[in-house]
Amino acid sequence: MSSAAYQQLCERSREVYLLRSAAAVLSWDFETYIPSKAVPYRAEQLSYLEAKAHTLFTDPVVGDWLQAAEQLGFDPGLEEGANIREWRRSYDRATKIPVALIEEFEKTRTMAREAWARARAESNFSLFEPHVEKIVTLTRQKADLWGYRESPYDALIEDYEPGTTAEQVKPILKELRAALVDLLSEIETETKSLPENFLDGHYSIQGQQAFSREVAGAFGYDFAAGRIDTTMHPFATTLGPFDQRITTRYDLKRFEFSLYGVMHETGHALYEQGLPPDRAGLPSGEAVSLGIHESQSRLWENHVGRTPEFWHLWHPTACKYLPDLTRFSPTDLASGARRVALSFIRVEADEVTYDLHILLRFELELALVEGRLKVKDLPEAWNTRFHELFGLVVPDDARGVLQDIHWSLGSLGYFPTYTLGNLNAAQLMAAAEKQVSGLSDQLAQGNYAPLLGWLRENVHQHGRRYLPADLMRRATGESTQARYRIDYLRRKYLS
Amino acid sequence: MSSAAYQQLCERSREVYLLRSAAAVLSWDFETYIPSKAVPYRAEQLSYLEAKAHTLFTDPVVGDWLQAAEQLGFDPGLEEGANIREWRRSYDRATKIPVALIEEFEKTRTMAREAWARARAESNFSLFEPHVEKIVTLTRQKADLWGYRESPYDALIEDYEPGTTAEQVKPILKELRAALVDLLSEIETETKSLPENFLDGHYSIQGQQAFSREVAGAFGYDFAAGRIDTTMHPFATTLGPFDQRITTRYDLKRFEFSLYGVMHETGHALYEQGLPPDRAGLPSGEAVSLGIHESQSRLWENHVGRTPEFWHLWHPTACKYLPDLTRFSPTDLASGARRVALSFIRVEADEVTYDLHILLRFELELALVEGRLKVKDLPEAWNTRFHELFGLVVPDDARGVLQDIHWSLGSLGYFPTYTLGNLNAAQLMAAAEKQVSGLSDQLAQGNYAPLLGWLRENVHQHGRRYLPADLMRRATGESTQARYRIDYLRRKYLS
Repeated sequence: MSSAAYQQLCERSREVYLLRSAAAVLSWDFETYIPSKAVPYRAEQLSYLEAKAHTLFTDPVVGDWLQAAEQLGFDPGLEEGANIREWRRSYDRATKIPVALIEEFEKTRTMAREAWARARAESNFSLFEPHVEKIVTLTRQKADLWGYRESPYDALIEDYEPGTTAEQVKPILKELRAALVDLLSEIETETKSLPENFLDGHYSIQGQQAFSREVAGAFGYDFAAGRIDTTMHPFATTLGPFDQRITTRYDLKRFEFSLYGVMHETGHALYEQGLPPDRAGLPSGEAVSLGIHESQSRLWENHVGRTPEFWHLWHPTACKYLPDLTRFSPTDLASGARRVALSFIRVEADEVTYDLHILLRFELELALVEGRLKVKDLPEAWNTRFHELFGLVVPDDARGVLQDIHWSLGSLGYFPTYTLGNLNAAQLMAAAEKQVSGLSDQLAQGNYAPLLGWLRENVHQHGRRYLPADLMRRATGESTQARYRIDYLRRKYLS
Repeated sequence: MSSAAYQQLCERSREVYLLRSAAAVLSWDFETYIPSKAVPYRAEQLSYLEAKAHTLFTDPVVGDWLQAAEQLGFDPGLEEGANIREWRRSYDRATKIPVALIEEFEKTRTMAREAWARARAESNFSLFEPHVEKIVTLTRQKADLWGYRESPYDALIEDYEPGTTAEQVKPILKELRAALVDLLSEIETETKSLPENFLDGHYSIQGQQAFSREVAGAFGYDFAAGRIDTTMHPFATTLGPFDQRITTRYDLKRFEFSLYGVMHETGHALYEQGLPPDRAGLPSGEAVSLGIHESQSRLWENHVGRTPEFWHLWHPTACKYLPDLTRFSPTDLASGARRVALSFIRVEADEVTYDLHILLRFELELALVEGRLKVKDLPEAWNTRFHELFGLVVPDDARGVLQDIHWSLGSLGYFPTYTLGNLNAAQLMAAAEKQVSGLSDQLAQGNYAPLLGWLRENVHQHGRRYLPADLMRRATGESTQARYRIDYLRRKYLS
């Protein structure tokens, strides 16, 4: 009976995946090619498919199968046991929230997103305030229903980074903050001289496309199982076991948007292409967390791409596709790609200051969820803390508390995964350098296969078999730490 | 109870449509942008969605609702009555075939399609013969289960042209054949002088795209509810109530492929864009038949586009986008677009000879289904009849009996809808000319709205409310006749 239950869980899980992957095709088309008038009906198609998938997975019979399968005592270190653990987590989280609350949350999100867009356009937080109020209230209700030991925030971060708590993250971010502030004071003077438009020029879209495609291919992206299209907001998405697509945007003056955008999304797509395709639809065939996912994108974008080694190797190819780059030496290009500057906007931030933006958001949303900060005091709290961290006065809410979409989507607990991604990237890279002999020489020669092979072996192939912290321990010897990233940044920006 | 049953039928019908339209998005992506390795899983997604839709619609409860709704005695001339009539037809046809037969037919089709491709490549009918044998046997079984009065062929054509029988089609095609043979003997000498490559030149893809888009827009195609992409085999497809997409192909030497291809698919898309969007998912919001659908594509492609009036108006625009066309006068272009030549291949045939190709196929598949022709005698029957009709000796089976995919797909009864489309196009055009004052002047000036308005009013808006023959009677005063097309061709090719 129990083994049959495990088989039935597999079958159901694959059916849910099939529906969600079909929805992913509809979403991809929604973002890339849909004609404008087709939008409302597409939203109906998508919510129907998602509702079907939800109903299939939360069917009480799934609970029965789970109970039966759990009694069989599968080893939690093996695939079956891990799948059961992950189904249990998802099933409990999905069934603990009553349908009425899900619907109220969805409605609130829809209205909050519109209000946020208007509030940001007018730089007027008061338009957004009542919506954040409601989002925080409903999110707290969800956290209470899900349950937690220390902070309700832990119940939220569980969606993105299973097994991680606020208490674990805090000391790591504290250590990182101190190090970044030091680092900034040391490098500030020498790098500030580089103007923002240093690399600006005339770069044809065809040239940018050809160049970024060649780089993605060299990194190991399989174009027979993917493609690159154009959207305003770049993303990577998976439409099925051999279908990992990327999008990017092109700026005729700045080739860096598309180039580093494609490297970033290629990192995400390489992770998905490295998951075991015969496990598609099972937890063991799925990415484990956002913090691990983001480590893959950051690793290829920053550790591999934003380096002098990259530009020494790729300079001729870049000049072939983008002739206006011949004005620059490889060293110029590497400097431009590593420019450091304080700024108000997270998505425009460089490698060094990026995590300070995240820190700020983590502290504030943690305080909101724990009830230590009132929504109406949020803008002031933002501006005060921003000044402490960056030494800059926020000019308006649009460039402050209103800049990100996340809270309007109800995604509290999401922000720290960006920094976890950065930390994991540095830590994985350090481990790969130790374990793969001659890795940096290989990378300097454009032989990216050994690095990808190491990531496949130590990260990709495992799917959700281990919790993120365990995955990091198995790959690097310890759970996520700040010091690998600190060492990396100091090496890269001070030498 | 009965009215509630009607509401439930509407709801179920819309749910089935939602699933099928979601599948249409997946199919569109399959034809346009899918990466090669993603194909097998996409096939799984598609067959899952289609199976879900089939199960929903053939649920016995649908039969109960139908019975209850039928007892309410809705007027069959009104929308509700027509919807019930159409659901009944679909429900009976879907439920009369046992699942085992459906599955055997699907397997047979899959193998037949592969065998056909191989047989055609090697021009060897014997490779395909056993598959046709099986297709004909299973098709006969289906026809017997569906039921018919005179010929089993009637049960097949019902899928494509509801309410039409072989006996109705025969005399019309006979009249057409005699007229075409006469016409060919009269025009042959003067038109044969035009070489096949008369219009060949150098036409950039960008120029072809811009030109055909402008023409499609002028005809009335709404790009906010559609788009044009590139595929090997052009098609039009509907992905939802405001999402009618077109594809085409580009040949750098021949702009006619893309131009007339886009006009043709635009005709299909205009029909779909003219269906009442608030009825999407109900029979009253669906196209009525292939013979009506094809009339819309042929009308815009041939009656509007393949004319001296078109080229006199569009010559400057064409030359702007495709400068190599400046070698030609408007009259040259019109002559090139109306070139008549005997050929072996249906899809390459001109307006005058096209229906002779269809006639041949209709006679042969009718004889196969009625058991008057053995599959092994098919190639000889083809070649003999081809020689009688065209006066040409078929050089090999690839250019003869193996050229079309339809029989490998099990689509017997499909071919006559092409000719019905041609006949309907001429008949509708004649009616429009009578009813819309100054129509030909309007068309000559590029004012296509009155024609589109007449088609919307008399064809598009009705969906499946009337059977095709009734729709034609309401729009033109009589059911489909041969003489309008004969008059049209004689006027166009003899004056």
